[in-house]
Amino acid sequence: MRFLDDVTVELVKHSASDTDVLWAARVSTAGEQSLAELEKDPGRSKGLINYLMRDRHGSPFEHNSMTFFVSAPIFVFREFQRHRVGWSYNEESGRYRELQPSFYVPGEGRKLVQEGKPGRYVFVDGTPEQHKLVTQQMESAYRQSYAAYEEMLEAGVAREVARAVLPVGLFSTMYATCNARSLMHFLSLRTQHEQARVPSFPQREIEMVAERMEAVWAELMPLTHAAFVANGRVAP
Amino acid sequence: MRFLDDVTVELVKHSASDTDVLWAARVSTAGEQSLAELEKDPGRSKGLINYLMRDRHGSPFEHNSMTFFVSAPIFVFREFQRHRVGWSYNEESGRYRELQPSFYVPGEGRKLVQEGKPGRYVFVDGTPEQHKLVTQQMESAYRQSYAAYEEMLEAGVAREVARAVLPVGLFSTMYATCNARSLMHFLSLRTQHEQARVPSFPQREIEMVAERMEAVWAELMPLTHAAFVANGRVAP
Amino acid sequence: MRFLDDVTVELVKHSASDTDVLWAARVSTAGEQSLAELEKDPGRSKGLINYLMRDRHGSPFEHNSMTFFVSAPIFVFREFQRHRVGWSYNEESGRYRELQPSFYVPGEGRKLVQEGKPGRYVFVDGTPEQHKLVTQQMESAYRQSYAAYEEMLEAGVAREVARAVLPVGLFSTMYATCNARSLMHFLSLRTQHEQARVPSFPQREIEMVAERMEAVWAELMPLTHAAFVANGRVAP
Amino acid sequence: MRFLDDVTVELVKHSASDTDVLWAARVSTAGEQSLAELEKDPGRSKGLINYLMRDRHGSPFEHNSMTFFVSAPIFVFREFQRHRVGWSYNEESGRYRELQPSFYVPGEGRKLVQEGKPGRYVFVDGTPEQHKLVTQQMESAYRQSYAAYEEMLEAGVAREVARAVLPVGLFSTMYATCNARSLMHFLSLRTQHEQARVPSFPQREIEMVAERMEAVWAELMPLTHAAFVANGRVAP
Repeated sequence: MRFLDDVTVELVKHSASDTDVLWAARVSTAGEQSLAELEKDPGRSKGLINYLMRDRHGSPFEHNSMTFFVSAPIFVFREFQRHRVGWSYNEESGRYRELQPSFYVPGEGRKLVQEGKPGRYVFVDGTPEQHKLVTQQMESAYRQSYAAYEEMLEAGVAREVARAVLPVGLFSTMYATCNARSLMHFLSLRTQHEQARVPSFPQREIEMVAERMEAVWAELMPLTHAAFVANGRVAP
Repeated sequence: MRFLDDVTVELVKHSASDTDVLWAARVSTAGEQSLAELEKDPGRSKGLINYLMRDRHGSPFEHNSMTFFVSAPIFVFREFQRHRVGWSYNEESGRYRELQPSFYVPGEGRKLVQEGKPGRYVFVDGTPEQHKLVTQQMESAYRQSYAAYEEMLEAGVAREVARAVLPVGLFSTMYATCNARSLMHFLSLRTQHEQARVPSFPQREIEMVAERMEAVWAELMPLTHAAFVANGRVAP
Repeated sequence: MRFLDDVTVELVKHSASDTDVLWAARVSTAGEQSLAELEKDPGRSKGLINYLMRDRHGSPFEHNSMTFFVSAPIFVFREFQRHRVGWSYNEESGRYRELQPSFYVPGEGRKLVQEGKPGRYVFVDGTPEQHKLVTQQMESAYRQSYAAYEEMLEAGVAREVARAVLPVGLFSTMYATCNARSLMHFLSLRTQHEQARVPSFPQREIEMVAERMEAVWAELMPLTHAAFVANGRVAP
Repeated sequence: MRFLDDVTVELVKHSASDTDVLWAARVSTAGEQSLAELEKDPGRSKGLINYLMRDRHGSPFEHNSMTFFVSAPIFVFREFQRHRVGWSYNEESGRYRELQPSFYVPGEGRKLVQEGKPGRYVFVDGTPEQHKLVTQQMESAYRQSYAAYEEMLEAGVAREVARAVLPVGLFSTMYATCNARSLMHFLSLRTQHEQARVPSFPQREIEMVAERMEAVWAELMPLTHAAFVANGRVAP
């Protein structure tokens, strides 16, 4: 039985660079010679990517691919998999596999209390008592649920039936493949930033996943990432 | 605390009829006069729809819309919302609302035991003892989980945090909007039929949802439904 | 032989109202009673729709459907059909039908000359001589192309082969089905407005189609349309 | 002025191998150790991919990416870009660039005459006279159209206006990015094979593009391609 307060994000493979964006854009607007010139001149590359981002020419940002391995609680995956366009998923199956007992318990830094009216919640720190209560209640509930799961499996009940008692705080794993455009759309909704042109209110746990993905992506495509930030973190 | 062994599917609104398919197809291949003639001759309408289905002209089946209200366990919604294309979802939010204690417990008719090798499981009846065990274990686990949820809420913990202990057997509700083509794709994978050209192995609970949707759809678009069945239950 | 300077847009059928948005949103956040209250209070309905638009809760805008009949030049359809998400198309087939000789020639109001650098073109009026030249060249080229098409058809050549000579100024027809969210995305890119938060530079001819669609939609869903305009014409 | 009877397809970049499929599938059903074993045993890899294809587990075929450069007539692109799901496009812009005079004229092997009733056309060879007529009519019409285009450009008319006279036989170029699943769907509809479980009737010119893409893909992912063929060329 493992209790975790963090998520895992690993880049499995990728075919993604700023050059992919430049090439795709140049098919639309110019010949290959121009691209050769462009690559000699980093300032112009940066300018072109910024122009595409600003004027919402979104398609040049789609000709690339990143596959992530993600391990996070089911309640995070429930939000994640609502992203339909430009995303591919393969998640661990509770029908084919016996699910392992790893569960999410908020760490000390997780703000536990929300204040304000619906749609404009602000989160504030919980008291030490609240943190203690959450840890106790969660660990206890998780243990009981998993014991019931195992009891049913031992009695010969099918995995897909027995799993009904497992909580959404259970960790699952998946492969998630996207391109820079679909990732930007995800980041614009699942991270919260002061410089964002449009406000977002993501649940902290999916934001933790999003932040890891953004850090990986920023290394692969630094000019594209910089243009995304500079243009208010709105997907083109 | 409610324990339910069944799902709910209601048609909220629709704009869907066999005529929509005929009109869309006729834009491609003929003038409006031909359609007027077609409507006078039901046999030809049936033939045209059957031809479109058989030769996989899929787009004429998209110009229609059905919105369903669905209430089912979270583990069903997890599979359901993996259908990305031609589907729109709005689900009850565990961040904005306190979730109500309705939980899924398999009914007597639910086969509990799977036999055979992965990918080719066959389900067989459980013994009375197995059924009794499942009912006891589930109800007990559900009660404990929900008590922990309430305990945390009463202590002022945010709903989005406290919900981590809630099981995937909890009922949720959603609006799901689709068109006939996306519905056929869903039905081809989430129902099991002897006359299906390609075998499917859906979990029984999502199949229960799918069967209700199919019954509704068959009334709205009887010629299209008949052509779907006659052509091996494969989406065009 | 017909020379047209305008496009046609007709609403074929729909299932689309502001209430659809409210219902879908309420599934997420509240019970049906709240909705009954909401309908008694138009001010709150307006406020809720505006909140959804502003904070980019996009999914409630998807549970509705509009089917348009569009007649426009092929070069418009080429841009239109690049919109992939939430759009369904059935276009007149040049493989199954002999295409009729209706062609696009710009009207007097169409600005013919572009100035400025790529990505920031501004269009200005053409001279009377330029307008005259365009009309003459287009009509002449269209006549010759269509004569070649007919010549080949008469010689027994397949329609799909002969059509290669037909120009992209030829009118085609299609059914296009969308929902409010996909329509807003289309409008944000294919219309140009001073109050738009992000600039767009659509070709005038597709903007003519977009303007007609927007006028129809604004009547069907006035609160949603008003919120779209008030929030800078950006799709949620 | 160039007259071409063939299309161009080049693989620009890719991240696509059979192993990608195995890894994604193994996330769903087993641990990484199993995969290591699997890779030592090619027979089992082949069996797993075949099982996924046969039982329509489509998502493991999505975690890969191929970018093609395609040069083909506009009438081919019009059909190509109707494929919406899992495809990204960037096409040469007639608004930003002056389009170059390369045009499609059918080669000697292209069957020119269709016989039979709609939906069941069969193509047969044209006579030498028909081939000669097609060549003459097309070349002549193309020359006149392009001359009109240049005339308008020289008079200062905007490219986006002048292009209305250009024929759909004009060559365009694009980047097209897809994954194995979306490519299989494309191939199932745009190639014609005796061993296909469902018949297709693609226009020959798009089939030429599809055949080139298939040949490239078969080298990158031989086990996946073999399973696609063995299972009736139906996308999972």
